[in-house]
Amino acid sequence: MKLALERPRLISLAAGFTDHASLPVREAQEVLDEILARSQSGQPALQYGSTLGDPTLRRLTAERVQALDLGLVLPLDRRSKLQVERCGLAVEGLGSSCNRQLSTGNGSSTASSSERKQESPRRCAGGVYSPERVIITAGSQQFLYMVTEALCDRGDLVLVEDPTYFVYLGLVQSHGLRARGVRLDSDGLDLAHLERLLDGLKRSGELRRLKLLYLVSYFQNPTGRTTGFEKKFRALELLRHYERAAGHPIYLLEDTAYRELRFAGEGVKSALATGPRAERVIYTGTYSKPFATGARVGFGFLPEPVFTAVERIKGNHDFGTTSLLQHLLARVLASGRFDRHLADLRVRYARKAAVMVRAVREHFPPEVEWQEPQGGLYVWARAPRSVRTGERSALFRAALRHDVLYVPGQLCYADDPTRRKPDHEMRLSFGGATLADVRAGLAHLGEAMRDCWPGSSRRSAGSET
Amino acid sequence: MKLALERPRLISLAAGFTDHASLPVREAQEVLDEILARSQSGQPALQYGSTLGDPTLRRLTAERVQALDLGLVLPLDRRSKLQVERCGLAVEGLGSSCNRQLSTGNGSSTASSSERKQESPRRCAGGVYSPERVIITAGSQQFLYMVTEALCDRGDLVLVEDPTYFVYLGLVQSHGLRARGVRLDSDGLDLAHLERLLDGLKRSGELRRLKLLYLVSYFQNPTGRTTGFEKKFRALELLRHYERAAGHPIYLLEDTAYRELRFAGEGVKSALATGPRAERVIYTGTYSKPFATGARVGFGFLPEPVFTAVERIKGNHDFGTTSLLQHLLARVLASGRFDRHLADLRVRYARKAAVMVRAVREHFPPEVEWQEPQGGLYVWARAPRSVRTGERSALFRAALRHDVLYVPGQLCYADDPTRRKPDHEMRLSFGGATLADVRAGLAHLGEAMRDCWPGSSRRSAGSET
Repeated sequence: MKLALERPRLISLAAGFTDHASLPVREAQEVLDEILARSQSGQPALQYGSTLGDPTLRRLTAERVQALDLGLVLPLDRRSKLQVERCGLAVEGLGSSCNRQLSTGNGSSTASSSERKQESPRRCAGGVYSPERVIITAGSQQFLYMVTEALCDRGDLVLVEDPTYFVYLGLVQSHGLRARGVRLDSDGLDLAHLERLLDGLKRSGELRRLKLLYLVSYFQNPTGRTTGFEKKFRALELLRHYERAAGHPIYLLEDTAYRELRFAGEGVKSALATGPRAERVIYTGTYSKPFATGARVGFGFLPEPVFTAVERIKGNHDFGTTSLLQHLLARVLASGRFDRHLADLRVRYARKAAVMVRAVREHFPPEVEWQEPQGGLYVWARAPRSVRTGERSALFRAALRHDVLYVPGQLCYADDPTRRKPDHEMRLSFGGATLADVRAGLAHLGEAMRDCWPGSSRRSAGSET
Repeated sequence: MKLALERPRLISLAAGFTDHASLPVREAQEVLDEILARSQSGQPALQYGSTLGDPTLRRLTAERVQALDLGLVLPLDRRSKLQVERCGLAVEGLGSSCNRQLSTGNGSSTASSSERKQESPRRCAGGVYSPERVIITAGSQQFLYMVTEALCDRGDLVLVEDPTYFVYLGLVQSHGLRARGVRLDSDGLDLAHLERLLDGLKRSGELRRLKLLYLVSYFQNPTGRTTGFEKKFRALELLRHYERAAGHPIYLLEDTAYRELRFAGEGVKSALATGPRAERVIYTGTYSKPFATGARVGFGFLPEPVFTAVERIKGNHDFGTTSLLQHLLARVLASGRFDRHLADLRVRYARKAAVMVRAVREHFPPEVEWQEPQGGLYVWARAPRSVRTGERSALFRAALRHDVLYVPGQLCYADDPTRRKPDHEMRLSFGGATLADVRAGLAHLGEAMRDCWPGSSRRSAGSET
């Protein structure tokens, strides 16, 4: 922020902002006008609400997440699919989840075993997807804060992805907690590593301090990776297995902030769809990124007794998210404006992602590895291990000289004393920047790489992993 | 809330809601329409902002609080004064603070000494009233939460008024803190008692655990009392005196939630106006109660190093209050709509307070003591010590039978092991109830008192203290 003010020509590929031009100004105006046109709807929108949130929005949220898990919401329509295809991205599987209630994730190889294990969410309609389990918050960030406060005491352990969402790491630190990183494969959580970690904690007697596994399960911040349903199911089984030794529940805290920003690949069910195992699932999502970050409303689903603890904390934080924004979101959802806006947004991000991917291919040295995103806002690029990308590195400084900013990968790794923090990666966001800035920013970053990394050749394609 | 749903005829004099019919529906519609009519103003309102808050709102807030301390904002105009007089309340001093920059509080007897000590806020324009010290929050409640989290560790001590705002007590408890109550006189904080408490803590070695004194300084929740400027000044001197023994700063956390809801009496300066002593003042206020609780925006002023600590916590909570509401409030303030709305609101609350006072006089037994409010939303009533008012008391149950709800006084007292919690008081709010409900509610409550307190006579006037 400070840098951006000091250098007006700086292109930021760092901020996780959403696309500025896409913000639903007209939709928000229409709906707020509707609400405030009559005192009957206007007065409740300007009055205190309840701690847990507006009942209509809680119900709509419960229904929406259940529909997502049933594959009934997110498929792109035919028109959008064609538009996405024109962007040059892979679109296999797009939309097909609509007809496949039991679709299970990215890979077809796991389909049979997961179909066997999976419970239909319809069967738990009164359970995990009940509006009674929903709490509305000031973005999903506040929810993460409250859950972590409710579950953890100073000195406790949490497991996070390695790398993970860096604001969550700040939160972990400010609560005086310790974090351990679980490795990521290209298809999400590395279960073998998770098991080794749990086993090590059991042997060292530290398992009793472990309270939760935090997982950004869709188009992860920062790597863009998605952890499939099968993996979530197995992670829950692993956590459950180690609960006896821990002496208390170990929760899976599933953060789905980017779930609705999918523009390729198949829909993946959330951990709420794991039947009885969902008793250990805490799910959070947000309306900020798919609608408007400036009208920030998030939500979470909680099993007892965490629900009651979080409700009490919410009462102390702010006794309920502001009514006006909740009423706005409830009408935006109920009127279909949310889904229409989201369809446009996904096409827009598909286009931006494609532009970024093309620019990476064109400008990055071939030694840099990266993965084509299927949703979310990020491309994660990995230089050879000998190249530093951190805030004090030659590359970071060269990038600034070339007026481009990225998030150094190092910031996304927990302070985990059991391994050295990798320092050769970067997070590039196509969320906030314009198409022209994405193009120019990547060209500048390529130049910066060649500046401080003279042996590198310029090629027409990077190395896709 | 639950009770209200179960008993639709229940009259709640308990909730601290603001007046429903007064909510500024038209004003909010006009301003939101203005913001969202053009993408130039609409897009930033729907995008992420910064952690500390919108720069315009921070500046307007800094200017407003300084103007309040200069006596330039709150005086009622002549028309409003006449309207308030017609309500039958005392209006001495109303509006005169406009011409008296050095006015000091409620009592003229203290004027000379305080004029001597007091520094003009103008002299600290770059200091305590600087926009750089302001942080915008989700209501003042979030600010209280963050400051307490920043300053206190588990097991620490805070001083609160006895009684105080009960939501703050919940917050104290949830942070694992201990509270000690400072007695209240009819004109606010009992300084002699504060000194005895500090001295006792020094002798017991507990002073090193004391971090702050929390003071609801204007028309306090629950008693409606105001602590004068002179008393705040002297409280700061006392705290400073004991800092050496404590080994760290002891802050005055001044909560001015009801400051702008003044309808009688003179304006009182805040503790920010104490010159160099203001380095130990943390000030919080809100736009919720004077404008719209459903578009909740609060704020606080912080000295370093607390500022930096709170900024970090705010980043972890929600990385900044939602832009749309901040932009709304900034325009409401800048356009003069805020002050026009506030002038109407004060007349409205004056009328409601007068109706409540008349009803108390008419319906309560003479043994009940109470004080006429000069602002805020509450009348605090005190039964003889032999009469219980708590949730399990005969009176509370009788009140429910008569379909009226109040806040038992006991809930407003900290868990302070050095004294027994008083259990013979009640908080009555004229904020949310209609005039008819205020009248009916007090009549019912009077009946409930006679039901379970048969010796009491019905008189035409209660006992004003």
